[in-house]
Amino acid sequence: MKGKGTAVDMDKEIYFDNSATTRPFDEVIDYMSYINREVYGNPSSLHTKGIEAERLMKKSRETIANSLDVSSKEIFFTSGGTEANNLAILGYLRANPRKGRHVLTTKIEHPSILEVFKYLQEEGYSVDYIDVDQNGIIDLDMLENKITSDTALISVMYVNNEMGAIQPINEIASIRNMCNKETILHVDAVQAYGKLQIKPIKSNINMITFSSHKIHGPKGVGALYKEDKIKIKPIILGGGQETLVRSGTENIPGICGFGLAAEIIHNNIENNWNTVSELNKMFRMMLEENIEEFSIISPQNSSPYILNVSFSNVKGEVLLHHLEEKNIYVSTGSACSSRKNKHSHVLKAMGYKSNKIDGAIRFSFCEFNSKQDIIETINALKEIIPKIRYDKYNQ
Amino acid sequence: MKGKGTAVDMDKEIYFDNSATTRPFDEVIDYMSYINREVYGNPSSLHTKGIEAERLMKKSRETIANSLDVSSKEIFFTSGGTEANNLAILGYLRANPRKGRHVLTTKIEHPSILEVFKYLQEEGYSVDYIDVDQNGIIDLDMLENKITSDTALISVMYVNNEMGAIQPINEIASIRNMCNKETILHVDAVQAYGKLQIKPIKSNINMITFSSHKIHGPKGVGALYKEDKIKIKPIILGGGQETLVRSGTENIPGICGFGLAAEIIHNNIENNWNTVSELNKMFRMMLEENIEEFSIISPQNSSPYILNVSFSNVKGEVLLHHLEEKNIYVSTGSACSSRKNKHSHVLKAMGYKSNKIDGAIRFSFCEFNSKQDIIETINALKEIIPKIRYDKYNQ
Repeated sequence: MKGKGTAVDMDKEIYFDNSATTRPFDEVIDYMSYINREVYGNPSSLHTKGIEAERLMKKSRETIANSLDVSSKEIFFTSGGTEANNLAILGYLRANPRKGRHVLTTKIEHPSILEVFKYLQEEGYSVDYIDVDQNGIIDLDMLENKITSDTALISVMYVNNEMGAIQPINEIASIRNMCNKETILHVDAVQAYGKLQIKPIKSNINMITFSSHKIHGPKGVGALYKEDKIKIKPIILGGGQETLVRSGTENIPGICGFGLAAEIIHNNIENNWNTVSELNKMFRMMLEENIEEFSIISPQNSSPYILNVSFSNVKGEVLLHHLEEKNIYVSTGSACSSRKNKHSHVLKAMGYKSNKIDGAIRFSFCEFNSKQDIIETINALKEIIPKIRYDKYNQ
Repeated sequence: MKGKGTAVDMDKEIYFDNSATTRPFDEVIDYMSYINREVYGNPSSLHTKGIEAERLMKKSRETIANSLDVSSKEIFFTSGGTEANNLAILGYLRANPRKGRHVLTTKIEHPSILEVFKYLQEEGYSVDYIDVDQNGIIDLDMLENKITSDTALISVMYVNNEMGAIQPINEIASIRNMCNKETILHVDAVQAYGKLQIKPIKSNINMITFSSHKIHGPKGVGALYKEDKIKIKPIILGGGQETLVRSGTENIPGICGFGLAAEIIHNNIENNWNTVSELNKMFRMMLEENIEEFSIISPQNSSPYILNVSFSNVKGEVLLHHLEEKNIYVSTGSACSSRKNKHSHVLKAMGYKSNKIDGAIRFSFCEFNSKQDIIETINALKEIIPKIRYDKYNQ
């Protein structure tokens, strides 16, 4: 059994941007170096160097399958969460053209889902986007009303990356079962895996997307869980690796690093949750005690790993840069859209107006953050905010 | 300037399967570990941790662009050569539906090209496969005859992965220019990059595919060169990374490892070529002197990095396993199809009959192989072949 994992050369910095990406575990970094040096064979090669690479890849596949209580033949490695989301949706629809021309998702998905749905709309699919309430939870009545006999697929994010809302996946699956058992339920679990226990069979989820670099694994690796009976077509064609689902020489060091990260994180999943919950609670309390005029965007029952806070009459980006001068790293929205200078589609869907969205900062935690990190961050906020707060009557 | 690179903890083994994959340079492994530990930010993040990641990625992009004498905005990182091949062909055709419904390739391409062409045929494209002669060189007359005003794209492999034939890329580009200047020339240079000097502007090539793990870089990374004026559509949709061409959080350690490997290999490209040419020549000579009844499949002017030899009345796979018992690692065909138990489509296209193909072994070299490796391999072949050679009259 693997230990707690280490990724804590962070004494000089406070990294609160763990939803954007995490620092890989030291154990993962060392293991990948070992594989690069010693197990560098191509798993398609017939000799022992290839077979050893394949054996380690199989071990990773089993680790991830075990964490989900599924069969390892239902796990397919990809180059990341984005590719897995594309593969799940496009792959399923291309393989099953007669399952319907209607697809459903929510208004708060990651761009790797929303852009695929936009593309599907261009391809002639009928697309609906389910609303969310002010807590970021999808409207289950609307979901029920929208599922028809023509609905091929529903894609719902498990934990939102910007504010942490946890969708009621089991209820969503029940509604799907009631309305159209043939409709496939795909779940983007990039922000949920390694934090919540995910059991696709119990929860009646047909496909799930995972990303390695959100759980202290390497970048450039992800996975798709796909129920065995479901057929999908590959979106990248070639040598037929991953049982024809995903061609290309397998990224063995990346896959093995992902497997090890998944193992370490699942061995500590409850402890980590408790640690991070305490940090989140402490952060909220200290905000109340020390900072004026802010609103917590993250709903009460959301993932403790994400705390989205809007500071009134503050430009989020200005605050971000002041914080980074103190070696505190945060995000304004999701990293994926932060460079685009657009208002967060997630916060808009929750009903927030521009001024609230402008002042929003996402603090996203991991088990290596400390109470001291929070104390220092609160002190920094106390110092910075009065300096950068603009006069609301004189913008 | 970087040194020669090291990847030589190979004293216990003779690795002659460098066309399947190479052992990463030690420098690359160490650099990736450093980046995983210290520069783990998401390049989409607005803070310095993201900016530093982006800066190193930019440096890699420039290294690769410089090696080709092109602009760095023409380099797009992918998860590997297979994805880059898919992106080039599918991406171009989807973005340019009016450029023609005819596409051309050769009979000796990698599966990541052939499977894409098979898919295009299913999609209604007219597809032609250019023949090759016994030296594996494509029939230029046939190419000329096949290019029409409806030909949207030609895809030709620079160096063949199974037997090393080097296509006359400049002549192919001239024929394309003469027949239809609008036709895009895509070159799969996975086995050529870092071995031959590739200059797309001089050579009139519009798109080129590269893979990192064939040049002592990490697995899971590749790149596409795309002439700036050419428009392609992404095949993976999402956050819009790589200037909208390829979404997904960038694999920074992988991309940086690829950049460093490209730098080291290009600093030594001529020396490496000479080293490997000598090894290849010595191998051919020692085969002549020591082994009976074999034919060299690799043509005389092929890449010195690949030596495909067919041993008469020997099962290639049996020989492979006997060699691996002596820690000598080779391949029967390309790694990508070696598990499929099919006869090599490349050797078939060159006109070889089953019995020759059955006895074919690919020895593929790198600059870290030594003359001693060859002496030991020849000694092993001398010992093994008489033991496993079957009676040709009594199969």
